[in-house]
Amino acid sequence: MSSPRQPALPEPRIVALGGGTGLSTLLRGLKEHTPFITAIVAVTDTGGSSGRLRSELGILPPGDIRDCLIALAETEPVMKQLFQYRFPSGSSLAGHCFGNLFLATMCKVTNNLETAIAATSRVLAVKGQVLPATLTSANLLAQYEDGIIARGETKIASSTAPIRRLSLDPPTCRPVPAALIAIQKADLIVLGPGSLYTSVLPNVLVEGIPAALAASPAIKAYVVNVMTQPGETDGYTASDHVRAVIDYCGKGVIDWVLVNTELPSGAALARYREEGSEPTSVDRKELAVIGPRVKEASLLSHNNMVRHDPDKLAQALLSLIN
Amino acid sequence: MSSPRQPALPEPRIVALGGGTGLSTLLRGLKEHTPFITAIVAVTDTGGSSGRLRSELGILPPGDIRDCLIALAETEPVMKQLFQYRFPSGSSLAGHCFGNLFLATMCKVTNNLETAIAATSRVLAVKGQVLPATLTSANLLAQYEDGIIARGETKIASSTAPIRRLSLDPPTCRPVPAALIAIQKADLIVLGPGSLYTSVLPNVLVEGIPAALAASPAIKAYVVNVMTQPGETDGYTASDHVRAVIDYCGKGVIDWVLVNTELPSGAALARYREEGSEPTSVDRKELAVIGPRVKEASLLSHNNMVRHDPDKLAQALLSLIN
Repeated sequence: MSSPRQPALPEPRIVALGGGTGLSTLLRGLKEHTPFITAIVAVTDTGGSSGRLRSELGILPPGDIRDCLIALAETEPVMKQLFQYRFPSGSSLAGHCFGNLFLATMCKVTNNLETAIAATSRVLAVKGQVLPATLTSANLLAQYEDGIIARGETKIASSTAPIRRLSLDPPTCRPVPAALIAIQKADLIVLGPGSLYTSVLPNVLVEGIPAALAASPAIKAYVVNVMTQPGETDGYTASDHVRAVIDYCGKGVIDWVLVNTELPSGAALARYREEGSEPTSVDRKELAVIGPRVKEASLLSHNNMVRHDPDKLAQALLSLIN
Repeated sequence: MSSPRQPALPEPRIVALGGGTGLSTLLRGLKEHTPFITAIVAVTDTGGSSGRLRSELGILPPGDIRDCLIALAETEPVMKQLFQYRFPSGSSLAGHCFGNLFLATMCKVTNNLETAIAATSRVLAVKGQVLPATLTSANLLAQYEDGIIARGETKIASSTAPIRRLSLDPPTCRPVPAALIAIQKADLIVLGPGSLYTSVLPNVLVEGIPAALAASPAIKAYVVNVMTQPGETDGYTASDHVRAVIDYCGKGVIDWVLVNTELPSGAALARYREEGSEPTSVDRKELAVIGPRVKEASLLSHNNMVRHDPDKLAQALLSLIN
């Protein structure tokens, strides 16, 4: 009775490395296609609610992990609203995001971020797994072209000098074993989108991650940001982004580079320009000589912010392995 | 093949009214016997983490509700630990209990305490239901024998003058319909144990609760506290407690009074005496003339605190309806 069909492709195993809004955007798109998602999240944040909880409670920063958990959550809407709730000014909790408090407290109770994330994942009915890049409390160090060193994400993101070298302090941070296993078993590994120096690269600074990426049989893709980021990637072209990633991952590791070719609206552009942010220019000649193959696509979300559209991003990435 | 058995008695429907430690102790005992439990919780607390959240966020105080939810929770142990976690001094969250933050935030997200409790109950896999006595933000007013009026639980509990009249401000607070339904359908209704003026009686001050209790076909019992409470019931005998309850519930409503006849250890007594707390004396002659039947039992928990044992308490109460 049923019409002849192509046999369904098995759902791919995907690992996404990053942090912040970029990673959660990607996860929202990917989860429509496969339940086998592992998000590996940078834990070097020092700002905002996360930074305060980090310094006051001696835990790893929860904010980016919270975003990923919400992105992969299959729980009732009220629980997502709860986790995203931010306390208003005027209260002693002002500025804190409830999901951060949840994760922070779970860390205190379980004494381990990985266990805390797993317990929180059960509460939120998370599809897939979210892992911290490392369990070591580390800070980012950025050495600028002029030799000056900035310590901590907040300071790094607020300087406009070009970054020459990024490292972790302490320099030797071990990955969680589950992250290495996921990388080894993946069909597709995605770096980015997200802040190049403060979300994507901190994952690759964790000891053993570049070697694990190199050894994995997965297709590995780097998603170039749609806009440059003031203080991090001012004036960076697509090839500048890719070169930085290769610098830390090693040559030959990245198979594909995904770039957006859709121009944002004039109004959005003007707004971003005021903040010092420009569309990342796709310098095709430069890209062609670096190594990875380049996939161009229209990837923009058509809302108020100039960001990747979760579904377009997921479709473009999945086309690399199908 | 099976041996002849007595047909199992149906699991009784029990309503417990109170607040604080006393109510959660009772619930822990009752839940071993029936899933049909409704806890009706006073929401007039003004102190501690609850009081701060109440004034800063404009919500009803969550602390006693949290205790009841944890008592009835069937969730994994780590979730109970999470809800009971109290932030250490030195952080901006110092003194807050995480479960209070959870309920408070859920109130902000759902804009209704009853809905917030229901959503939290799903997270904690709560057996039975927990209801606020009212959704009106009210304060307790206590008029003392000397005519002076104290406002708010914290002030009331810190004065040692005898309380002549307790009332709510605003005076007319409506109960939640689910509480009236539970009272109407109950087999057993229990008031106390717990702070007489700040946990038990605030429930009975809610409009319509005394009438609902009077109209319910349930057996109604009041559990007398094992110790007097400084600032609330200094020097109160068992009959003084019962008279106060009858004053607010009306005559003929309470069928049974449950009193403890077990003396605490000398060491515990000495410790409590230093705080101005004595074992509640069981004045049998006085009790006999008030009206309710009296059930005497050994009800003490044998740990560091002089408190009711959840299981002994539940057994004694269930014996009233079996």
